[in-house]
Amino acid sequence: MRLLSEVERKPVKIKWLLRKTSDKWLELALANPIEILIDHAHCERKAAGAALQLMFRYLCEPGLAEVLSPLAREELEHFEKVLDIIVSRGRYLEPLAAPPYGSLLIKQVRKQEPKRMLDTFLVSGLIEARSHERMSLLALHSTDTELRDMYGELLASEARHFNLYWSLSIERFNKAIVVSRLTELAEIESNILSNLHPEPRMHS
Amino acid sequence: MRLLSEVERKPVKIKWLLRKTSDKWLELALANPIEILIDHAHCERKAAGAALQLMFRYLCEPGLAEVLSPLAREELEHFEKVLDIIVSRGRYLEPLAAPPYGSLLIKQVRKQEPKRMLDTFLVSGLIEARSHERMSLLALHSTDTELRDMYGELLASEARHFNLYWSLSIERFNKAIVVSRLTELAEIESNILSNLHPEPRMHS
Repeated sequence: MRLLSEVERKPVKIKWLLRKTSDKWLELALANPIEILIDHAHCERKAAGAALQLMFRYLCEPGLAEVLSPLAREELEHFEKVLDIIVSRGRYLEPLAAPPYGSLLIKQVRKQEPKRMLDTFLVSGLIEARSHERMSLLALHSTDTELRDMYGELLASEARHFNLYWSLSIERFNKAIVVSRLTELAEIESNILSNLHPEPRMHS
Repeated sequence: MRLLSEVERKPVKIKWLLRKTSDKWLELALANPIEILIDHAHCERKAAGAALQLMFRYLCEPGLAEVLSPLAREELEHFEKVLDIIVSRGRYLEPLAAPPYGSLLIKQVRKQEPKRMLDTFLVSGLIEARSHERMSLLALHSTDTELRDMYGELLASEARHFNLYWSLSIERFNKAIVVSRLTELAEIESNILSNLHPEPRMHS
């Protein structure tokens, strides 16, 4: 593992999202706050599960568990916050059909190591980056004070999450290779979202 | 879901462990502190994974995610503490062959709901209770101050964990049924440990 210089460790102005979320998504999300909340809770628990799964897969990789375990804890804290609001509104973790976003992205992960590791980091980072963008939109445009505050509160740590996947990548792979693969995956990520999924979801 | 009275919510003097850990286990554990530490870290991460898995399985069950998500976070916090000591001693999360303890207990879980849910709670509680007993022994008998302090520190929350699985059980099932099934499983748990596994492990 190559150690990072202080300059490299700083958050990088890297192009995670090639295209912005459409106005149509925002309209759909604002019109269906409780469905978005429930889906958001599912996203946070899945993100925690994915971080743990990644940690379990590469247990012997030094420096990984030290980062992924606190990340999973933070995702679970967010999950609990969102669940709290859902429960206070008389609903629970009803199952929601997931949009194809996550599964299509995961399909892009190459099977062979170490490419598999790099792709998993980048796909996770992309999902975090898109969640961050969408939570920013909801924090800005929701007319519901409680939700606006909650999304605003989660934003800061969500931003750390995609930088964390960036750091994990460039600590282990050549930077030019990381940027080139990220650009490919970011193109695919934006394309997946170009056809709006008809149901209101965090990643529709 | 039946709500618990204050009396029922109090920690119960319930017989989780039918037989005490043998002196031979303690000797083996004290003679192999780093192996026990690495195995302990694996146990904490597996406990977090198991809590999440349980939460994912019964997502629509009210009152479950609210308890299991903070539990998983606490197990991960413990994992990080143990990992920190392992790293400071120049080792990492090397894979260790697991003793048959966990897999033999999980085999006892009946396949049909709601028995499956009850058995999963009780098996999880039994594992927590045994971990707690063994950490108490290490906290008491280890000659390594750092380890003694660490085990002592983790004990209080470990005790909460098996009471938590007890509460989850009696909130949802008839108390007499819970006690009877727990007694059966506790007998099996003690039997599994009656033949000491030759390698030093938390559950050998």
